[in-house]
Order: sequence, then structure tokens, then C-alpha cells
Amino acid sequence: MNEQETINQKPETIVVGIVMGSDSDLPVMQAAADILTYFEISFELTVVSAHRTPLRMVEYASGAKDRGLKLIIAGAGGAAHLPGMLASITSLPVIGVPIKSSNSIDGWDSILSILQMPNGVPVATVALNASRNAGILAAQFIGAFDQNIAEKVAAYKEKMNKEVLEKVQHLQSAGWPNTFDK
Amino acid sequence: MNEQETINQKPETIVVGIVMGSDSDLPVMQAAADILTYFEISFELTVVSAHRTPLRMVEYASGAKDRGLKLIIAGAGGAAHLPGMLASITSLPVIGVPIKSSNSIDGWDSILSILQMPNGVPVATVALNASRNAGILAAQFIGAFDQNIAEKVAAYKEKMNKEVLEKVQHLQSAGWPNTFDK
Amino acid sequence: MNEQETINQKPETIVVGIVMGSDSDLPVMQAAADILTYFEISFELTVVSAHRTPLRMVEYASGAKDRGLKLIIAGAGGAAHLPGMLASITSLPVIGVPIKSSNSIDGWDSILSILQMPNGVPVATVALNASRNAGILAAQFIGAFDQNIAEKVAAYKEKMNKEVLEKVQHLQSAGWPNTFDK
Amino acid sequence: MNEQETINQKPETIVVGIVMGSDSDLPVMQAAADILTYFEISFELTVVSAHRTPLRMVEYASGAKDRGLKLIIAGAGGAAHLPGMLASITSLPVIGVPIKSSNSIDGWDSILSILQMPNGVPVATVALNASRNAGILAAQFIGAFDQNIAEKVAAYKEKMNKEVLEKVQHLQSAGWPNTFDK
Amino acid sequence: MNEQETINQKPETIVVGIVMGSDSDLPVMQAAADILTYFEISFELTVVSAHRTPLRMVEYASGAKDRGLKLIIAGAGGAAHLPGMLASITSLPVIGVPIKSSNSIDGWDSILSILQMPNGVPVATVALNASRNAGILAAQFIGAFDQNIAEKVAAYKEKMNKEVLEKVQHLQSAGWPNTFDK
Amino acid sequence: MNEQETINQKPETIVVGIVMGSDSDLPVMQAAADILTYFEISFELTVVSAHRTPLRMVEYASGAKDRGLKLIIAGAGGAAHLPGMLASITSLPVIGVPIKSSNSIDGWDSILSILQMPNGVPVATVALNASRNAGILAAQFIGAFDQNIAEKVAAYKEKMNKEVLEKVQHLQSAGWPNTFDK
Amino acid sequence: MNEQETINQKPETIVVGIVMGSDSDLPVMQAAADILTYFEISFELTVVSAHRTPLRMVEYASGAKDRGLKLIIAGAGGAAHLPGMLASITSLPVIGVPIKSSNSIDGWDSILSILQMPNGVPVATVALNASRNAGILAAQFIGAFDQNIAEKVAAYKEKMNKEVLEKVQHLQSAGWPNTFDK
Amino acid sequence: MNEQETINQKPETIVVGIVMGSDSDLPVMQAAADILTYFEISFELTVVSAHRTPLRMVEYASGAKDRGLKLIIAGAGGAAHLPGMLASITSLPVIGVPIKSSNSIDGWDSILSILQMPNGVPVATVALNASRNAGILAAQFIGAFDQNIAEKVAAYKEKMNKEVLEKVQHLQSAGWPNTFDK
Repeated sequence: MNEQETINQKPETIVVGIVMGSDSDLPVMQAAADILTYFEISFELTVVSAHRTPLRMVEYASGAKDRGLKLIIAGAGGAAHLPGMLASITSLPVIGVPIKSSNSIDGWDSILSILQMPNGVPVATVALNASRNAGILAAQFIGAFDQNIAEKVAAYKEKMNKEVLEKVQHLQSAGWPNTFDK
Repeated sequence: MNEQETINQKPETIVVGIVMGSDSDLPVMQAAADILTYFEISFELTVVSAHRTPLRMVEYASGAKDRGLKLIIAGAGGAAHLPGMLASITSLPVIGVPIKSSNSIDGWDSILSILQMPNGVPVATVALNASRNAGILAAQFIGAFDQNIAEKVAAYKEKMNKEVLEKVQHLQSAGWPNTFDK
Repeated sequence: MNEQETINQKPETIVVGIVMGSDSDLPVMQAAADILTYFEISFELTVVSAHRTPLRMVEYASGAKDRGLKLIIAGAGGAAHLPGMLASITSLPVIGVPIKSSNSIDGWDSILSILQMPNGVPVATVALNASRNAGILAAQFIGAFDQNIAEKVAAYKEKMNKEVLEKVQHLQSAGWPNTFDK
Repeated sequence: MNEQETINQKPETIVVGIVMGSDSDLPVMQAAADILTYFEISFELTVVSAHRTPLRMVEYASGAKDRGLKLIIAGAGGAAHLPGMLASITSLPVIGVPIKSSNSIDGWDSILSILQMPNGVPVATVALNASRNAGILAAQFIGAFDQNIAEKVAAYKEKMNKEVLEKVQHLQSAGWPNTFDK
Repeated sequence: MNEQETINQKPETIVVGIVMGSDSDLPVMQAAADILTYFEISFELTVVSAHRTPLRMVEYASGAKDRGLKLIIAGAGGAAHLPGMLASITSLPVIGVPIKSSNSIDGWDSILSILQMPNGVPVATVALNASRNAGILAAQFIGAFDQNIAEKVAAYKEKMNKEVLEKVQHLQSAGWPNTFDK
Repeated sequence: MNEQETINQKPETIVVGIVMGSDSDLPVMQAAADILTYFEISFELTVVSAHRTPLRMVEYASGAKDRGLKLIIAGAGGAAHLPGMLASITSLPVIGVPIKSSNSIDGWDSILSILQMPNGVPVATVALNASRNAGILAAQFIGAFDQNIAEKVAAYKEKMNKEVLEKVQHLQSAGWPNTFDK
Repeated sequence: MNEQETINQKPETIVVGIVMGSDSDLPVMQAAADILTYFEISFELTVVSAHRTPLRMVEYASGAKDRGLKLIIAGAGGAAHLPGMLASITSLPVIGVPIKSSNSIDGWDSILSILQMPNGVPVATVALNASRNAGILAAQFIGAFDQNIAEKVAAYKEKMNKEVLEKVQHLQSAGWPNTFDK
Repeated sequence: MNEQETINQKPETIVVGIVMGSDSDLPVMQAAADILTYFEISFELTVVSAHRTPLRMVEYASGAKDRGLKLIIAGAGGAAHLPGMLASITSLPVIGVPIKSSNSIDGWDSILSILQMPNGVPVATVALNASRNAGILAAQFIGAFDQNIAEKVAAYKEKMNKEVLEKVQHLQSAGWPNTFDK
């Protein structure tokens, strides 16, 4: 039985864990949940604070692989230690979402705290607040081993392409002198 | 036949593509090749310049999935467009390595050009010059679907852990008043 | 027949292409269209996303010179690859407008992604959101080879000069103790 | 007689002015002269300091168009006012080269002082120290109106492309497992 | 007759010139005028744009000393060349006020363009938007040679001191447990 | 009699001094007072401006130890000299709170002015605007020598932990597919 | 028996823990050990990596208080999680030393990862690489409750003062026209 | 007797005080002494550390005016408090020189700590390490009230102008195709 089947035939199996440092990060992290739902990739979502619940974080990371997770998406702001600490404990891949929280300096602290991990313990970092991209990246990694998801990702890219072309049409019909209608 | 078999039974199949914008990036990107070799993950390595060979880049990205690649590691410096452009063309996941090249402003341009991708087209960004981490991340993602690789990653983490403990021992034998010898 | 005639005698020939990564960039890029209209330089305006429509971008850039364009103005935000990628494909000059879009880190990512191009592939970068200046710069380059446009640019500079002097008059009549009324 | 003839039939006519704030900038600005020589575009090169020879600067800019210049390349470091001040006086296009001089803060001051020009007075800014790109950009703008130069620029781009491909060959012959030999 | 008499006995003589790059800078620069009025130091205020009225700027700076000015306060934003260019032309001291204008990148461009002047041509730079401090600094420099103004500056400092102490009293009466009532 | 008794048996003894550069900093610094009140650590709060009341600052710092203070919490913004100057005068520990005041450049000036103290004169710096953390840090240092306070700090940490777990419960009852309910 | 006695009468009791993320940080952290030795404050020094030995880190922090430590000094570079994670687990105060390690972006990542801790979990951050100041800060906090250490800190401040005055004398004897010999 | 006479007829009167936070700043601050010597403006030079000799700093600033100083030039690095603290105590004008010392973060901390002074207490800040410009600025302010010094400043500006023109000649004789020999 291949991985693809694991994911698609047993929908009850959670494949992706979405965690965040605070429930105030939920408005940003919601987009990761939405896009995984769109791709029909099963996920769990919860709050795990590296700083306020460090032992819960250790437990979450330690048991993640055994509970069947394939990867973890972790969002945090300020001195954002959650993604890196999860990555230090589990050998599952961790996708980090820097969040421009209220106590962040324009997001620079969030980005650098997540991105600049030392040799041996990477975090796959996406753009500031880009939790949707974290979900798409998760789908791409799963899709590399699951043709069904791969097709959904390819279709999603095609859809984005079409949406741009429709906006091009709209611009033209709105009277812009556009001679490039490929 | 599952993905795991694909990788391990046909070693001739290339699983990871390592590309860089210039051969001057090779000293940095070598570490990605070394760590993949260590994990016995097959890879190809070449130069693909988004700016000097744009059509080669389009071809590389367009055919990557059909040639069997599971993911791409792309390193570039300055206004680093290679990782993001590959990600725009292929639906394979792309891991981006910002390089502090000679024409970079302390690496800030490299980081922001790779990290800050728009919605829909993520790049999994690692730390500045951290090509080894890009390779480890690749192994982690493959390991999520390949128990053999997962065990190697876990062993690698264990090895790092032991190396630190050995340094602790060395510090103690060198006479530091260390009472914490757990 | 000289270039000047090409521009002025065949107004239907499009001389400048204004492109942007997203229709959400239109409020910023509108000013480029307005100033070109003011200078009576014919242009086309459309959306070309490097990341969501990469092949459209290749086509746009590949055919630009044959379609008669003299230069391209390209605006984008965040990890802004559009101006640089167009410049990598066409040998026409490209003027880049960094846009402080909603997903940008105060515009720094947009600026560095467009400005810091590698040797061999320049982009003529203007200030953050300065699409009007992109249009003026286009007029100046065309004006270097087209006396008619050159005179319009000179008149525009004279007009700016007069507007400042009128504001000086206004300050004085408003009672400011200004003894320098040159 | 078209512009193209002006440039090619009267080689004694200077088309591009290369100026810099200090002779200590010459090692950086030399590359602009070299590439214009390569493209056989005639140029002059001199030192014009906005801060130490302000009236010379006014004269240089005021007379540039009448002396036949088509555009000016200006390099400066620190609080770099030369490109912007030339642009304020002449209606010729000005290409600005931010220089990381000894008194510059990692080049940030040079970049921002040249790039962030106000509405109405653009400077076409290239990357830090990228005087070669300033020369290429000049060639591209001239090439938009001069088929001879345009062909040289296209050939230059083709040459860069080939150099990358040769490096790819070299990597392969050096034993890298490269399966992408397009 | 000493300088002090010049200033005090001929109130019609303008001592300080306040200039700004645009009338949109007036809300910020008003505070310089207000504090000079408070110190009874005569001044003129006008708009002089380095970029839109370069020759007016040259004239303003060239004649400033002969018209009796002792120093110039110049405010500008973005690629702020006005203070530095005035300083390049006149040998009068120039106080520069970086302005966080609408086209500025959080004020960094304004600050660096004014502060980072090359050897030989200083600008006395104050904090972002701190035009009041520019006026106080002018008063301090004049006060170094004019006992009357020096006393006003000393009194102003004393007034600030008292205002803080009054706020301390207010905090205490509002119930804060403050045991330090020196 | 040990320190613990000093603090708890003589509540009239002030243990912590909270000072700020301006009463406009009170809304930020209030949180330090609140958390010290919560921990039942006696404190005084007042305004001491390094720049407007320098001699008051000298007096405050000089007498702080003799008046019984154990440590000082000092908040300031912009070129924030108050924490560092207090630390230069007293040998008591000083906790510095960088404040993002209206005249600050996004808080960077406040942070660097407080954090980057020279060898010999440290300031214990907390995050931007994090006056509550300054109070908690004070409690932790006092708690290192006062078991009563130590227990309160431990209880506070436990309370934070529980609040996160309650939010986890809330997320679950709100329907999120959370399978990790440790 | 008071805390002061604990420290001075039982020298075998370790009061301060100095930990660092890597033995490559030892050259920077040595200064903390040196200054604590100077102040005769007992300490332990070891390597505890948040990322490579996360469980050792949890153990170190969990047992620190019971082993008698009063405070922890933790140094780390890049995405520096060690100080903040220790602070999340123990209720002892943690002094953080940002280190400009080889993989750090000029130290900005180290500073922001340590300084910008969320509400509830402070780290007392000192300047970049300022481990000596971390040791002095530790002495100051201990000195607030231990008169013996307080006197040593006061003497150290006096010694620094004298060293400056000796340099003043040296400058004068070297012939500088110094009339201020207070 | 006017100020000018005071300065020129009594050379023993010290007009400018040059102070720095550490003797390690002397190599940078030497240039201020050199240029004042060149302008024949009498000065004193000494070390005054805001952080290690705070009371000496108070004394220096408190007595400066009575000792006859007209202005103070103060250089410091890192969290540079010396210029601002002198300005808080004396009503003499203070010129601040940010120094890129070994413990500075590329000079940013030095610049912001000196430049970003609050309302009421300005420091006339010059460029990073620009102590020569601090001396020239001092000469310009004195020259505003002393015709002798004013002439020296004007001559200095003329000398700089000539030096540039000589370099222009040198470039031409070295064979550069320079047609602008104004």
C-alpha cells in the first residue's frame, strides 16, 4: 500500500498538524486550514506555546510522527521559537509561518527567529503571515509522493493562471489599450 | 510499488535537483550535495540561471516532475529569482537557499527575494547560505514517506546530540567547573 | 524614417508596455499610464504575473521587441520577480517599479528584489510606488531620440518649477516673512 | 537621418557621459566605461562632485544635452546627491549607480539617496556598485532606437547564456551527476 | 559693533533661513518657525526644491551669507538633497531636518540622505521630523555668541525641567506611590 | 533577618523603582506597576527625564540604593538614555524598557540606545514596550532570593500554562479537528 | 541564614549557570566566566543546545532551581532560542547574550530572537557579544541581596572610573591641550 | 570687543571642547582636532565617559560655558549617550559624532542613539565617524559670527573645489576621453 492510499483511503488519519503560539494567531493561521481543506488533506489544528506550555510542546513534537503526522505547520510571532523547537525535537519536516503579531517589530523578529536556524535543524520558512502558502507547500510535498494531491496542486496552479487571464480580459473590456491578449 | 521503493530500489532515479544561479555559488551549495550523499538520496546538480538562461530555467522546471524529481533545491544571491521562478512553473516543492554572494547587501536582498513569495507560489526558505539545511529538509520531507530515509534523519539528529554531549565532556575534562553532566 | 517619426506619425504603434504582477497593483501603476498619456506616448497596460502566469510572461517578453515596444515598465511587490525576469528574456530596457503591496515588508522586499539584479541583466529601478517617475523616465529615454518628446519633458520640468514658485508666492501672501522672492 | 546614424556615423560624438563624485569611485565606475567600449558606444568620463564642485555640476548638467549627450551615468556613495541633482537640472535621462564607498553604511545610504527621488525627477537606479549594468542599461536604451546597438545587446545576452552552458558542461565533465544537459 | 548687536538692534535683519523642499513639509517645519519666534530670532521661511527648482536653490544658497543669514535650517524627505546641496554651495552652517514624508521609507531614506554627507561638507542633522530641535539648535549656536539668546535658551531648558517636575507632582497627587519628591 | 523578610514584613519599604522619561510613557509603563502589584512587590513610580531633568536623574540614581531599592525599571523611547545613565551612576541592576514613542523610528532607536551598552555598564533589556515583562523579570530576580516571591512567579507561570490549555479546549469545542488533547 | 551567607560561606554551591548553544560560542562567553571569577561568584559553564539537545535543555532548566542556581546566563547566535526556552521552563531569571556567530546576519537575528520574548516570559538581554556585561548584571542582581557582592560591584565601577581618569592623564602628558583636569 | 577678537586675540582661550567616550575613539576623533588646528581654532581634547565617569561628565558639561567654550564636539559609539547627555546639561550647542566602534552594530546603534534626541534637547549629528566634518561644522558656526574664520572656511571649500578639478586634469592626462574640461 503506498502513501497515497494512506492519505486518501483513510481520511480519519491526520496528515498535517497546524499549531500556533497563541489563539491570537488564529486569524492568520486560518488560511492554512482553509487551503488544506480545499486540497482535502486531513489536519489537526491547535495552540502549542513554546514559551507558556514548553512541556506540551515537547510532547506534541515527540509524539507527532507516531500519531501519523507527515509534517507540521507552525506559526508564531516576535521571538518565534515554536517552529524551530518543534524541529529540534521531531524529525518530521516543519514549515514555519512568521506572524506579524502586535508585539513584533514589523515582522523582522518573527522572520529571523524562524528562518535563521542553525546547521542540522532546518525550518521551511514561508513569507510573513503567509499561512496559505504554508498549506500549499505542505500539499506540494505530499503531492511529490501522492499523485492525487499532485493533480490537485497542478489544478490549483492552473486556476490561479486562469484568474489572472480573466483579470486581463476585464482590464481590456474596461477600456485599457491592451494589445497583448495571448 | 510504493514511493519508498522507487527511491531505494532504483538508485539511478534522480530524486532531488540541486540548482544554482551561478557556478560561483558552488562552494555554498556543495553542502547540500554532501548531505544528500550522506543520506544516500540520489540527486543531480547543475547551474540554471534565471537571468542569464531563462529558457533553460523554464525547461528545467517544466520537465522536472516528468524526469522523476520529487523536489528541487535552488540557491541564488542578490535579487534571487531562481527559486521563486522554478516554483512558479513546476508544481514540485522548491527549497530556496539565499546566498550571501559578492553582489548581495549582507544577504538581505537574497533572503527577501526568496522568502517573500506571493500567495499561491511558496518557496520553502532556509537560512542564509544554509544549503546543508536545505538537504536535511529535503531528507525530512522524503523521510515523511520513506521509512528508510526517516531512520537516517533520526540517526543524524541523534548523532548531532551525541556530538554536543562529547563537547560537554571535553569542556569538563578541560577543567570547566561543570556540575551538570546529565 | 527616424524613430521620432515612428512614434509620432503612427500613433497606433505601441511604444511602451506597462505591466504589473496583479490587478491590485493598478492603483499604483495608474500614474504611469496617466503621465504617458500626458506626454502623448502610446502604451499598452496589462497584468502579467511572473509567478502565476510564467509562460505568459515569457511570451510577453519574447515578443515585445517584435511588437514594436521600445521599453517596458513593470511594477511588482514583495518578492518582485516580474521586472527582472522580463529583463532576462528581452533585450529591451525594463523600468522597474517596486510596489509596497499588502504582503510586503514596508517595501524593502520589493525594492531589493527589483534593484539588486546581477551583472548582465539590469533593471532601471525607481522609488517605491513611483510609477509616475517610471513614466517620466520612459519619456526621458524616448526624448533622448525624439525631439518632440524631449520638448515635452523639458516643458514638464519647467511646469514643476513654476508650481513651486507659485507656492512660494502663496506662502508670502499668506504672511510668511519671506525676503527671498527670486 | 535617423538617430542610429548619428551614433554610428559620427563616432567622435559623445553619446554617454559617465560621471562620479570622486576619483576614488573610479575602480567601481571603470566597468561602465569598459562595457560601453565593448558596445562601441562613445562616452566621456570625468569627476563631478555635487558637494565639492556644485557649480561644475550645474554646468555639466545644463550643457549636457546641447553637447550631444543622450544620457548620463552617475555614480556616488554615502549621501549620494550627484545622480539626483543632475536629473533635477537636465531633462536627459540619468542612470544612477549607488557606490559602497568607505564612508557608506553598507551601501544603504547610497542606495536610498539615489533611488528614492521625488515625483517628477526620476533616476534610473541600478544595483549597488553595478556600474557594468549601468552601461548595459544605457546600451539597451540606445538600442531601442539603434538597431546596430540592439543587435550587440542581443549578442551580449546570447554570450552570457553560452557562458552559463559552458560552465554546465564543465560541471558535468568534472563528475557532477547532472542528468539535465539541455 | 559685535554680532550680538547686529541681531538684537536691527530686528529687521533676517538671521535664520528656514527652507523646505515642498509646501507639504510645512506642517512639520512650522515648529522651527514657532520656536524661533519664541526665542525672538528673526527668520525667513520659504520653499526651495533642490529637485524642482535647482537654480533657485543655487541662488538661495549663493546669496544667503550676503543677505545676512547666519545659518540655514533645511527640511526635506525621501532622497533629501536640499540640506546637503545648500551646504555644498554656501559656507554658512546648515541644519538638516529629515522629514518622514509620504514617499519616504519610514524616514530611513530622509535620515541617511541628509546625515551621511562626505568629508568637507557637513550638515548638522537632527532627529526625524524634529524641526523644533532644529530651531533650538540654531538658538544655541547663536547663543554661543549672543548672551541675550543664550539666556533665553537657558531659561527654556529650565522651563522644560519645571514642566517635568510639575508632572511628577501631578502623578503623586493622582495617587502613585512615589517616595522620591526631590 | 533575611531579604525575604525585608520585603514581606515591611511593606512600607520600596523595593523597586519604576521610572520613565516622560508621562506620555505611562500607558506603556503601567503594566510594570500592575504586575508588581499582582506579585505584592512594593514599588515607587515617577518621571525622571535624562534629558530634561539630568540632575534629578543623577540624584535619583545616586540615592536609590540607600533608599532601599533593590532594582530599577526604566522605560524610555527614541534616543533612550535614561536606563543606561541610571546604570552608569548606581550599582543597582537596571531593567530597561524600550518604548515605541511617537518620535521613535519603529522602536529601533529605543532598542539600540538601551541594549547596546558598553562593557562595564549593562542594562537588562526587555522587548519593545514590554513593561509587564520588566516587572516579571524583577520578580524573578527578587524571587531568586525570596522564596515567597519565587512561589508567586512559579504560580504565575502555571497560570499562563493553564490559560493556554483552556484556549485549546475552547478551540476543540468550537469544532476544530484537534486530536492532540494532552 | 540569609542568601548572602549561602553564597559566601558555601563556595561549593553553584550560584550562576553559564550555558551556550555551541562550543564555538566559548570565546565570546569566556568573559562572563572571567568576570564572575573576578567577583568570586561560583558558577558552572557548559554547552546546552536548544536545537541539538532539546531534552538536555529541558532537564537543565527544570532542575536548575533545585540544584541551587540563582540565575542563568545563556548565550546563542542566529535563531537563538536557548535563552528564551530556558526562561519558558524555569522560573529563575535568565540573562541572554546575543552572539554574532558565523551564521548570523550581522547579529540582528541573534538580538531579535532573544530580546523580543512574548508577555510572561522575559529574558534580560544584554548587548551583542556582551557576555562580560551579562556577568556584571548577574553580580548586580546578586549584589542587591548580598552586601559583599554589592561592594565588589561598587568597587568595580570605581575602578572603571579611575581607569578613564588615568587615560585622561595619559592624554595630557602626551601633549593634548586639555584644560579640564578635574 | 566682539567675539571674533575673543577668539583670535586670546589664543589661550579654549573655544571648542572635543570629548570622546573612550581613548579607543581617538583615532577617529583625531580628525576633528586636526581640522580645528588647520582653522586655527583653539580647542581642548579629553576623554569623558558618560557611562564610566558620569559625574565627570556632569561637571564637564556644567562648567563648559563658564570656562569659555562656545561649543562641544562629542564622539561615542554603541549606545552612545555622551553627546545627548552633555546637551541635556549645558545650553551650549553639541555636535555629535557617531563612531563605529568594535561593539557597534555596523554603526546603526551609534547613529540612532545620538541623532534621535527628544524635543527640547538637540544634538547636531554628523555622519558615521565623520569627526572632520564635526570640526568643519564647528568652524562654520563660529564663522557665522567671526569673519576671519568665515574666510578660512570659504577658502577651504575653494581648496576642495580645486582638488577635484586637479583630479579631473589628471584623469584627462591619463587618457580618459573627457570632453568637459570646464
